[in-house]
Amino acid sequence: MMSYRVLLIIISLCILFFPGERAGAQSQVPMSPQTQACIGCHDTYSPGIVKDWLSSRHSKTVPGDALKKSALERRISAQSLPKELAEYAVGCYECHSLNGKNHNDNFDHSGFRVNVIVTPDDCKTCHPVEVGQFSGSKKAFAHKNLMENPVYQVLVNTATGLKRVEKGKIVSDKPSDATLHETCLGCHGTKVQVRGMKKIATKIGELNFPDLANWPNQGVGRVNPDGSVGACTTCHPRHGFSIEVARKPYSCSQCHLEPDVPAWNVYKESKHGNIYSSKHKEWNFESVPWVVGKDFKAPTCASCHNSLVISPSGEVIAERTHDFGSRLWVRLFGIIYSHAQPKSGDTTIIKNKDGLPLPVTFTGEPASEYLIDPKEQAKRLTVMKGVCNSCHGTNWVNGHFVKLDSTIKETNEMTLTATKLLLEVWKNKLEDPSNPFDEAIEQMWARQWLFYGNSIRYASAMTGAPDYAAFKNGWWYLAENLQRMKEWMELKKKAAGAQ
Amino acid sequence: MMSYRVLLIIISLCILFFPGERAGAQSQVPMSPQTQACIGCHDTYSPGIVKDWLSSRHSKTVPGDALKKSALERRISAQSLPKELAEYAVGCYECHSLNGKNHNDNFDHSGFRVNVIVTPDDCKTCHPVEVGQFSGSKKAFAHKNLMENPVYQVLVNTATGLKRVEKGKIVSDKPSDATLHETCLGCHGTKVQVRGMKKIATKIGELNFPDLANWPNQGVGRVNPDGSVGACTTCHPRHGFSIEVARKPYSCSQCHLEPDVPAWNVYKESKHGNIYSSKHKEWNFESVPWVVGKDFKAPTCASCHNSLVISPSGEVIAERTHDFGSRLWVRLFGIIYSHAQPKSGDTTIIKNKDGLPLPVTFTGEPASEYLIDPKEQAKRLTVMKGVCNSCHGTNWVNGHFVKLDSTIKETNEMTLTATKLLLEVWKNKLEDPSNPFDEAIEQMWARQWLFYGNSIRYASAMTGAPDYAAFKNGWWYLAENLQRMKEWMELKKKAAGAQ
Amino acid sequence: MMSYRVLLIIISLCILFFPGERAGAQSQVPMSPQTQACIGCHDTYSPGIVKDWLSSRHSKTVPGDALKKSALERRISAQSLPKELAEYAVGCYECHSLNGKNHNDNFDHSGFRVNVIVTPDDCKTCHPVEVGQFSGSKKAFAHKNLMENPVYQVLVNTATGLKRVEKGKIVSDKPSDATLHETCLGCHGTKVQVRGMKKIATKIGELNFPDLANWPNQGVGRVNPDGSVGACTTCHPRHGFSIEVARKPYSCSQCHLEPDVPAWNVYKESKHGNIYSSKHKEWNFESVPWVVGKDFKAPTCASCHNSLVISPSGEVIAERTHDFGSRLWVRLFGIIYSHAQPKSGDTTIIKNKDGLPLPVTFTGEPASEYLIDPKEQAKRLTVMKGVCNSCHGTNWVNGHFVKLDSTIKETNEMTLTATKLLLEVWKNKLEDPSNPFDEAIEQMWARQWLFYGNSIRYASAMTGAPDYAAFKNGWWYLAENLQRMKEWMELKKKAAGAQ
Repeated sequence: MMSYRVLLIIISLCILFFPGERAGAQSQVPMSPQTQACIGCHDTYSPGIVKDWLSSRHSKTVPGDALKKSALERRISAQSLPKELAEYAVGCYECHSLNGKNHNDNFDHSGFRVNVIVTPDDCKTCHPVEVGQFSGSKKAFAHKNLMENPVYQVLVNTATGLKRVEKGKIVSDKPSDATLHETCLGCHGTKVQVRGMKKIATKIGELNFPDLANWPNQGVGRVNPDGSVGACTTCHPRHGFSIEVARKPYSCSQCHLEPDVPAWNVYKESKHGNIYSSKHKEWNFESVPWVVGKDFKAPTCASCHNSLVISPSGEVIAERTHDFGSRLWVRLFGIIYSHAQPKSGDTTIIKNKDGLPLPVTFTGEPASEYLIDPKEQAKRLTVMKGVCNSCHGTNWVNGHFVKLDSTIKETNEMTLTATKLLLEVWKNKLEDPSNPFDEAIEQMWARQWLFYGNSIRYASAMTGAPDYAAFKNGWWYLAENLQRMKEWMELKKKAAGAQ
Repeated sequence: MMSYRVLLIIISLCILFFPGERAGAQSQVPMSPQTQACIGCHDTYSPGIVKDWLSSRHSKTVPGDALKKSALERRISAQSLPKELAEYAVGCYECHSLNGKNHNDNFDHSGFRVNVIVTPDDCKTCHPVEVGQFSGSKKAFAHKNLMENPVYQVLVNTATGLKRVEKGKIVSDKPSDATLHETCLGCHGTKVQVRGMKKIATKIGELNFPDLANWPNQGVGRVNPDGSVGACTTCHPRHGFSIEVARKPYSCSQCHLEPDVPAWNVYKESKHGNIYSSKHKEWNFESVPWVVGKDFKAPTCASCHNSLVISPSGEVIAERTHDFGSRLWVRLFGIIYSHAQPKSGDTTIIKNKDGLPLPVTFTGEPASEYLIDPKEQAKRLTVMKGVCNSCHGTNWVNGHFVKLDSTIKETNEMTLTATKLLLEVWKNKLEDPSNPFDEAIEQMWARQWLFYGNSIRYASAMTGAPDYAAFKNGWWYLAENLQRMKEWMELKKKAAGAQ
Repeated sequence: MMSYRVLLIIISLCILFFPGERAGAQSQVPMSPQTQACIGCHDTYSPGIVKDWLSSRHSKTVPGDALKKSALERRISAQSLPKELAEYAVGCYECHSLNGKNHNDNFDHSGFRVNVIVTPDDCKTCHPVEVGQFSGSKKAFAHKNLMENPVYQVLVNTATGLKRVEKGKIVSDKPSDATLHETCLGCHGTKVQVRGMKKIATKIGELNFPDLANWPNQGVGRVNPDGSVGACTTCHPRHGFSIEVARKPYSCSQCHLEPDVPAWNVYKESKHGNIYSSKHKEWNFESVPWVVGKDFKAPTCASCHNSLVISPSGEVIAERTHDFGSRLWVRLFGIIYSHAQPKSGDTTIIKNKDGLPLPVTFTGEPASEYLIDPKEQAKRLTVMKGVCNSCHGTNWVNGHFVKLDSTIKETNEMTLTATKLLLEVWKNKLEDPSNPFDEAIEQMWARQWLFYGNSIRYASAMTGAPDYAAFKNGWWYLAENLQRMKEWMELKKKAAGAQ
C-alpha cells in the first residue's frame, strides 16, 4: 500500500505542475488542485465518470460566473459563494467534500476526506431554492410516506414478501431489503446506512471504503447518510447533470409508468408525445429560461410540471419549481379515490374518518383538513391553464378540464362500486378483511383503483391517448374486472355452501 | 369592451403600416392583412400556435407558387385558386374564414367572422383530391360506423357505462359523453355540436365564443359543425401541419396500438421498425415525392399505406392515397373474423346472413356482397407487393404473404372454436346471450378475437415481431384463454348443479 | 427469354465499358464486373436493396485495405484473402456466389451461379473469428435447442397448435409450419429447405428460382440450405450491415422483450436506457474499437455483452465476442429455475436427475455437470464487472451484484413454492400431469417462472427499472398468481367433490 500512496502523491504533483497534460486539459475552466488529483487517478480507473463530467456544465463554468447571469437565465440560486467554490469548475472534490462532518459516509480516500454520496444538503450550497422547494414535496417524503404508513406496509409486504406453502396455506415472510430495494424503494428511495468500513479489492489493490447498506440507489426519496432526504441524481444523472436529460420524458418514465402510474405511457401515445417523438430533435432542451414555441413546440413532463417557461416575448408563463406537486390541484393517483392534493408532502400525518392514514375513507369521504381547499385548487389550476394557453385557446382548455373532472368523478364511482362488492365479500366471510390485499377478490379490487382507475385518469389528463382509457388497462378492464369480482364471489359462495 | 376593440384596430393598423415589425417578419412570404391582425394578438396570447405555424410550409409558401410545381412534386391538388388565396401565405384567416355560412361555429371574433374548427370541407379548397379520397374511406365513417351500429353499441355501452351494484346485480348506465369522448371517440371522433354562444374569461377580458359540446377532439371521423366529417389534424397536427409528423409512425400509434389494434407495437418490434429506430435520423421525411432507397431505407406506416412513393429513377411505385384502406385486400381487424375489405367506407349498410350489421356471421360466413371480390383483392395485393418489391425479391415477398394467408385462416378457426364454446355456454343457460359482452365467459370470448387474434394477425402482416404472435397477446394467450373459457364453463355448470 | 438474356448481356457490357454511368458510380471503390451486372438490373428492379448496400461499409472499402488496419481497429478477422475478393468492394456477387457447391439454394440466375441465402459459412470467409465464436453459442443452437427438446416441444405444441372442441374437450393439432415460423421460430430460426425449382412471375417475366420452404426468415439459429446454422442478418440487417444498428438496442428488442425475456423493456426504463434515449444522438455508434466515455456515455446491450470496448487511454476493457453468453455467469432465463450458464451452446445434451433435458429439476436441483462451475462463473463475473467499473466504483458494482444474487435466490424460491402447489394439484388428480402446460393451474404455474420470475430477474440485473420488478409482471403478479393458483385449486377440489 505504501508504494501506492507514493504513486498517488507523485501523480498529484505531476498534475499540479503540468496541469494541461491530462483530461483536465479538455476543460475550459480552472479545476481545483484536489479535483485534478481525483481525475489523475479516476481518468484511468473509471474513465466513464470523468468523461461524463467533462461533458457537463459543471466542468465548463465556474459558479462565480454563473452568479452574474440575469435572474431568468440563472441556473444557480445561491446569492453568494465562498471563494474556493466560486473560482473553480464544480469538480469531484467540490461536491464530494462538502459538509463532511454531517456525513456518516465520510472517509479518508487517498489522502482526501470525501463523502461517497453527494446529497441534496450538499447540492443546496449552490442550489438552495431548488432544494428548499424539493424538501417540502411528496417526493422528498417518498421513502417515509411508503415505509411508515401501516396500510401501505400491508400492501408492500403482501406483494413482495417471500412466500411458502405451509399446511395448504400461503405464508409470507417480510420482504428482504434487497427485494424492497429493487421494487418499491427503487423509486421511493432506500435508507442508505453506513455499517462501518470494509476493505474492497480494486484494480489498484485493496482500499478502505465505507460499508454501505441499501446502496447503490437513486430513488427520489432516498434517506442519506447525512440525514438528508432525496437524490438529485434521480432526474439529473451523474456526472453529466444534464438539464436536457431532466427535461426529456425518459427520466420521468423510470418511475411513472404502467400499470399503476402510466403517465409516461399515456404521454407517449398522446398528441403531445407524438409531436415530441417526431420533432424534438429540432428543439432546444438546454436553454434557460425555456421559451415555448421557440425552444419547444409541444410540452414534455417538465414543461407543465417543473420548468421555468417563458413566452417568446419574455413573459413568464410558469415559474420554475422543484416541488413537483405545486402546479397540481388534484391527485390523480387514487388511494383509493382520486382526491385534492395533500397540504404537506409528509402524508403520514393524514388520518381519515375511519382512523386510517389515508386521504380518503373506504367509501370515498376525503380527509379534507389534510388536503388543499377549493381556493388553493383553483389557484393551481389557473397556473396550469396558463401553460396550456401558450398553445391552446381558453375555450379548448376549459373543455379539456371539464372532461377531466367528469372522468375523476366517474372513476371514483367505479371504485366505490367495487368497494361495495368487497364489503359484501367480507360480510359473507368469503375473504378475510384483516389483510385487504392477500385474497383473490381483494386483489381484483386493488387492480380496480390502482391499475385501471389510475390509467383512465392519466389518459384523461393528457387527452389523446384513448387506448389507455378504453382497452389498455382502461374502461374495458374496469368493466371486466368488476364482473369477475362478482362472479368469483358467487362461485366462492356456492363452494362455501357445498362444503 | 369598447377600448379593447379600439386597441385591436390600432394594432391591426400598425401591422398594416409596419408589416415587418412583428412575428410576421419571420415569414418569407406575404401574409394577408387579416392574418397579420390575427397574429397581432395571438403572438402575445397564444404564442405557441403562432410559432408552430411559422415553422409550417403553410407560412413559407403561397398557393400560387405551389400550383406551379410538377405533378409529382405538388402538395396541392386544386387546379386553380381564387386570387386572394393564391397570393398570400396560408395563414390564420385563410383557413378559419372559409365557408363560414356552412359553419354553425362561425362567429364574430374581434371584428372578423371566423370558424373555430377548420374542417376537411375547408381544407379541400386546396386539397380536393385528398379530401375526396378520404371521404369514401372507413376513417371518414369512423364515428358513424361505431355509433350507429347496434352490435358495437352494446360493446361500447357495456365497457364504458358507469356501473352500480343493485340487489347483487351489476347495473350499467349509458356512458357519459365525456367518457365516450375520451375512450372510443378519442379515435373515432366526436360529434361536435354548437350549443349557442357563451362568454369566456380570457387574459384580455370576457369574450364571446361558440359554446361547443364534445370539444376539443381530433378523432379521425369527427362530425364537424359544418356537417362534414373527419379531422385532417388527426395526422397533420395544428399548426405545423407537418408531412414529417404524418409520415413518422408515432402519429398512427395514437390509435393503432395494443391490445386491440397493435399495429404500432408490432411495427416497432419488427425489423422494419428496428431499422427505422436506428437510422431514421438520416432520412428525409419532407420530400415529395418520397424516394425509396434515397429518402428512406425502411418503410414507415405511410410508405406502405398512403404516400406517393417513387423509385430513385423516377418510376411511381405507389400513388398517394388518403383512402387508407385502398391498398388493403383483407381486413385483419376481426369483427369477429378477419375478412375481405368492405366495399364502402360506410359499414353500417352491411347486413350478414344472421341479419346483423357485421361483415361475417357468428360462425364465420362473410357477407360477401358488401365485401370486395377476389379480383379486387388480387389487384390491391399487387399494389402492395409492388411496394415490397422495392427492397425484396418476388420469392421473398410471395413467401411472406403465403404465411399471412395461413395465419388469417388459423386465427379465424381459433375464433370459431371459442365461439362454439360460447354457444354451448348459452345453450346451457350458464350466461345470458342477450348481451354478448357482459359476463365472464363472454368477455373471455371477446378477448379471443379482439385482442389475441388481432395481435397475431398484425404480427404476421409485419413479420418480424414474433413475440406479438407468441407470448405477448399471441398464441400463448389464445390457448390459455380458450382453456379458461372451458374450465370456467365447467365450474359454472357444477355451481349451477349445486344450487 | 432469349431476348431478355441478350438484353442482360448488353446491359452488363454497357456497364463494363461505362462503369461510371450508373449506381456504381456512387461507390468510391472498384466493383467486380459481376456485381456491376447484378446492380445493372437490381438498381431498376429492387432499388431499395442497391441503395441500402451503397450506404454500407461493404460498398465503401475493399477487404485488402481492411486487412491493413491495426488489430484493434480491424473489422475483418481473416488473415488473408484471395485476390478477387481483396480488390473489389464487397458486393452482391462477392457474397452470393460463395461456396456454391455446398448450397442447395445455388442456381443459375441470368447467367450467374448464385445462392439465395448468404450464410455464416459464407460470411466467415472474411469474418472467421466472429463466426467461430458464434457457432459455439446458444444462439447458434437456437433452432435445435427448441425443436429437439421434448419438454419444450410440449410447450410449443400446446401453445401454438390449432385447437378444436370435440365432445367437450379441447383437442390440439400439431402447429403448422407457418405458425411456428411466425412465433417461436421467428426468433429461434426456421429450417430453410429447398423443395426444388419453381417459376415465379416477376416484373421482367417468369424466372426460375429455388423453391424455399420456411423462407423468408432471419431467426438467429436458422438452419440454412448449406447445412450451416445462424443468420448474421438477425442483428446486421441486409444490405447495410450496419454496426450502428447492431449496437443500438432496437435490434436486441426484436426478440428479447416482454413478457418472457423483457431485457429490452427493462433496459429502456432503466437509468442506462434513459440516458441512452436522451443523449445517444451525440454518440458514435460506428467507431471500432468502441471507446467508453468518448463514443458512448451509457451502455447499450452490445457494450456489456458483445463489443470490443476500450478506455479513452487505449486499454482494452472487454474483448469483442460473438459468443453472446460468454460474459455471462448465470442464466436469468429460468427453465424453470435460474441457473449457471450451460457449458455448451447445445443444450439438448443436458439431462437432469429427473431424466429430463432441463438444466434444473422440478424441485430446483441443477444438472451441474452440464453447467459452468463456480470458478468459471467467477471469471466471467470479473469480466462483466470490468465493464461496469468504467463508470462505477467497485463498491457500487459489488452492491449491485449482491442484490442480483439475492433476487435470483428469492425468485427461484417463489418458483419452488408454485411448483409445490402444482404437485399437490397433480397428486389430487385435479389436473393431468401428462402435459404440464395445458390446464388452467398448470398455465398459471408456467406464467410464474416464465413471465414473472424472469421479469424480476431482468429488472434486477439492469437495476433501475423498478416497475418491472414491482407491478409490471413483477412481485405483485408473483403474489397474485400464486394466490389464484391456490384458490383455483380449492374451487376445483370442491367442484370435484360436488360431482
